[in-house]
Amino acid sequence: MDRCLFCDIISGASEASFVYKGKYCSAFLDLFPINPGHTIVIPNQHFTLFESMPEEVVSEMFIAAQKIYKAIISSDIPCDAGNIFISNGKIAGQEVEHCHLHVVPRYPGDKKLMKFISKEEIIKSYRVQLDKIAKQIKKFL
Amino acid sequence: MDRCLFCDIISGASEASFVYKGKYCSAFLDLFPINPGHTIVIPNQHFTLFESMPEEVVSEMFIAAQKIYKAIISSDIPCDAGNIFISNGKIAGQEVEHCHLHVVPRYPGDKKLMKFISKEEIIKSYRVQLDKIAKQIKKFL
Repeated sequence: MDRCLFCDIISGASEASFVYKGKYCSAFLDLFPINPGHTIVIPNQHFTLFESMPEEVVSEMFIAAQKIYKAIISSDIPCDAGNIFISNGKIAGQEVEHCHLHVVPRYPGDKKLMKFISKEEIIKSYRVQLDKIAKQIKKFL
Repeated sequence: MDRCLFCDIISGASEASFVYKGKYCSAFLDLFPINPGHTIVIPNQHFTLFESMPEEVVSEMFIAAQKIYKAIISSDIPCDAGNIFISNGKIAGQEVEHCHLHVVPRYPGDKKLMKFISKEEIIKSYRVQLDKIAKQIKKFL
């Protein structure tokens, strides 16, 4: 494996502005923030993808994200809303190959927009199609 | 409060193609899927915003999302990557006022792109700025 930027941050080999250090995950500010307070939550151990993480890590990551988001709301950082997301895999926009969760504060007039751009129209599904897909998913749950 | 579409789905007053029903949360397919298998995970109890949910609900929602994502990968539904996100608050793109988490399967050539559109250039922050913001957040953690 190539050297991992986020593993280097966890080990202290690269610097970061930390806000949280927990048993299974840590959080620090994004160097290229979409808005001030944009935070990255990552597992302390290296996992490239969301699906590889043990449940206790997933749980701590999202509970930490909520705590951080609440702290941002309580602070003076502009935050009236938020985008909380994981881009999982290159096709989905993942840039660093160490699973990470973004917590992005939003405020009126921030001139940002988070959206799916689709080259095809997003259309309403028929119930029969959805039931068929749900059945496929449930088979593996 | 106006009638809530997602509360109606939980109570059975409105139909949905469910994939998961748990203690604190449930999941069903999005009626306007970005890609096939696009799933919505919601708390069974009504919470408008992410920050209002108790930790056990947050934990179950994200563990359920991971289980569902893994099930989608195991199924025949095209899924090489995924966008997992909460749009929290109207400014952030929340359309239904009942907190919900999207699990969107992605695959090569799906003609979709999830991105932040910014009318201002996203620029690299100075460490001193980030440290100052991190300090503000940590004060409330």
